[in-house]
Amino acid sequence: MQNFEYCTPTRLIFGKGVIEKLPEVLGGIGKKVLLTYGGGSIKKIGLYDKVLQLLDGFEITELPGIQPNPKYDPSVLDGVRLCKENGIEVILSVGGGSVLDCSKAIAAGACYDGDPWDLISYKVKARKALPIVDVLTLAATGSEYDCGGVISRTETNDKIGYIDPLLFPVASFLDPCYTFSVSKKQTAAGIADAMNHILEQYFCEDATLMNDGFCEAGIKSLMVNGRACLDNPEDYTARAEMMFVCTLACNNIMSLGNSDSGWPMHGIEHALSGYYDITHGEGLAIITPRWMQHILSERTLPRFVKYGVNVFGIDSGLDGWAIAKEAIDRTYAFYESIGIPMHLRDVGIGEERLSEMAHHIAANEGLDSAYVPLSEEDILSILRASL
Amino acid sequence: MQNFEYCTPTRLIFGKGVIEKLPEVLGGIGKKVLLTYGGGSIKKIGLYDKVLQLLDGFEITELPGIQPNPKYDPSVLDGVRLCKENGIEVILSVGGGSVLDCSKAIAAGACYDGDPWDLISYKVKARKALPIVDVLTLAATGSEYDCGGVISRTETNDKIGYIDPLLFPVASFLDPCYTFSVSKKQTAAGIADAMNHILEQYFCEDATLMNDGFCEAGIKSLMVNGRACLDNPEDYTARAEMMFVCTLACNNIMSLGNSDSGWPMHGIEHALSGYYDITHGEGLAIITPRWMQHILSERTLPRFVKYGVNVFGIDSGLDGWAIAKEAIDRTYAFYESIGIPMHLRDVGIGEERLSEMAHHIAANEGLDSAYVPLSEEDILSILRASL
Repeated sequence: MQNFEYCTPTRLIFGKGVIEKLPEVLGGIGKKVLLTYGGGSIKKIGLYDKVLQLLDGFEITELPGIQPNPKYDPSVLDGVRLCKENGIEVILSVGGGSVLDCSKAIAAGACYDGDPWDLISYKVKARKALPIVDVLTLAATGSEYDCGGVISRTETNDKIGYIDPLLFPVASFLDPCYTFSVSKKQTAAGIADAMNHILEQYFCEDATLMNDGFCEAGIKSLMVNGRACLDNPEDYTARAEMMFVCTLACNNIMSLGNSDSGWPMHGIEHALSGYYDITHGEGLAIITPRWMQHILSERTLPRFVKYGVNVFGIDSGLDGWAIAKEAIDRTYAFYESIGIPMHLRDVGIGEERLSEMAHHIAANEGLDSAYVPLSEEDILSILRASL
Repeated sequence: MQNFEYCTPTRLIFGKGVIEKLPEVLGGIGKKVLLTYGGGSIKKIGLYDKVLQLLDGFEITELPGIQPNPKYDPSVLDGVRLCKENGIEVILSVGGGSVLDCSKAIAAGACYDGDPWDLISYKVKARKALPIVDVLTLAATGSEYDCGGVISRTETNDKIGYIDPLLFPVASFLDPCYTFSVSKKQTAAGIADAMNHILEQYFCEDATLMNDGFCEAGIKSLMVNGRACLDNPEDYTARAEMMFVCTLACNNIMSLGNSDSGWPMHGIEHALSGYYDITHGEGLAIITPRWMQHILSERTLPRFVKYGVNVFGIDSGLDGWAIAKEAIDRTYAFYESIGIPMHLRDVGIGEERLSEMAHHIAANEGLDSAYVPLSEEDILSILRASL
């Protein structure tokens, strides 16, 4: 078991109707609020009006239009400017993981005099950040319970995971009802995103018995409850459990004491969505079974056997290689069954830039020290298999 | 799934040698330290000297001699007095759960002008508490990651679980090596304590798929790693995993969104150790299978079947009642196999005061609203079966 430090100070406020506590929670922090949101879905479900009604008496500045794979320019830069111009005291992120990720970068940038990219690119360590409160409308990224955000800079194809303990939300409001209207495509991508977060932690050199069981339970829950959400988008129990599994899946709590795997599938996917702006969860789902196939070896076989037996209930009496193969096939089949396009060409990515991406990933993602080290050739091979 | 709020701000600093960070962590809080500890085992293992050496330059006041089932008088009262007399800024608890529980009550009492019992008995709500840092030497209670402590007041046979979010430790230092010298008796009691914490959360009206898997993994890990600790007290990996499971087991993280079970076995055990000062973990182990037998019914059967199949690997094809019976028998057999005395008479408790205790429990522990409601007669029946 490895040494570790862990601290997540975020207050989770979970369940039906919890939004009513928003004024009390926000009021304890500040009155000058930057309200960040995305393309307007929060208006369609009435959440925008509800928030404004609850925050009567607060001074609200709005930053709308934050996109999936949130952009440094204009969203982060605009947000930082608005915070400085308006003396913002707290950021209220209402939306999914992209809005929250962007809000985190804004929170740090607003307390820094230089170019915010200095912080995101780790050239400078932030000394402070504005407090963040979020109201989540999408179960997927786990940003509501971690201190990281992924920011894209289009002109350089950079997609950086910006992580700093200053960026934990003060409070996250998690009402599963706000996810009822999430489309099948986005629900499936959220399932895949969270499943992959758990798989990145599960496939490592050593893992504790408890962590393995916790991860296996999380994956099984996502499969069962995720499918139930797709079958009946207003199934409260399924939406609730899916939302909470997603919340824990990116927080490290499922792998404390395990060796760091290096999160190789994310390393690869960040280039895909950095270059092509595809949906992150879909990119992960496409990469996952190809990565699994690529790293399967005598050394990794016991992990795959455990995964196959405990997650899919494959007969433990079978040959190990057969169990591993079936586990990978079933992973692929699950993603396909929830409607995820399972080839890069299905999401508009062809052969053209695979070599360039493989080179970029090998140069930037540190995957030579991952659970199974990946060279540029390995990465290219995984990308080719994903076409 | 139930609404919930959850926030655990404690920083966990886990692993071999982490004590070296103590001056840095403590120095960020204050220089005037109340050092609390128990009967002197920290001197035997060299930890006392190590702490004093690391804290050269700090102003240290000592409160030694805190007993298991820590006492309001003299420990809490002495600690509060020392804090006030010496302008203490931070409490450093070095020891097991009892020392830490006592330190929590002191932390609240030190910031209150009246009788500290007002706080512990919930007559008055604490407004602030001194910050607490702990160095743990026993894997058992989980006090290092929760905001509660159990305090006994001998003259009234009161044993109260005093809970307040102000009482989360700021930081918990968890070095498994400090548990190498824990006796077989205390190691076994720690296993039973943590197993029971999980069982109290697992046996409830509704539970999420993820929580069930998390709890089952925790129990299985305690059985496997606990036994390994008994077989080889210096097995680092086993001590480490046992320590971390214990840390998570009393924090609610394993049952967020589940219905509250009311923690009935703790309700009963608190009277046993309140009246007789027995080891808490042993009391819980004795009560557990008798409580299980008592509440087994058509309604609770599915829970027992899940427990039996997933924790003990009992064949799911068997009759449900047979699975439940075997699960209860195996629970008993596990406790017995790790050397726990499994009858009240083995720990010095006879028939004499059972009725009085049953009355006290029924009057004070609110078990009429537990997962399976327990009347005074039910409680007496469970106590009698435990003789």
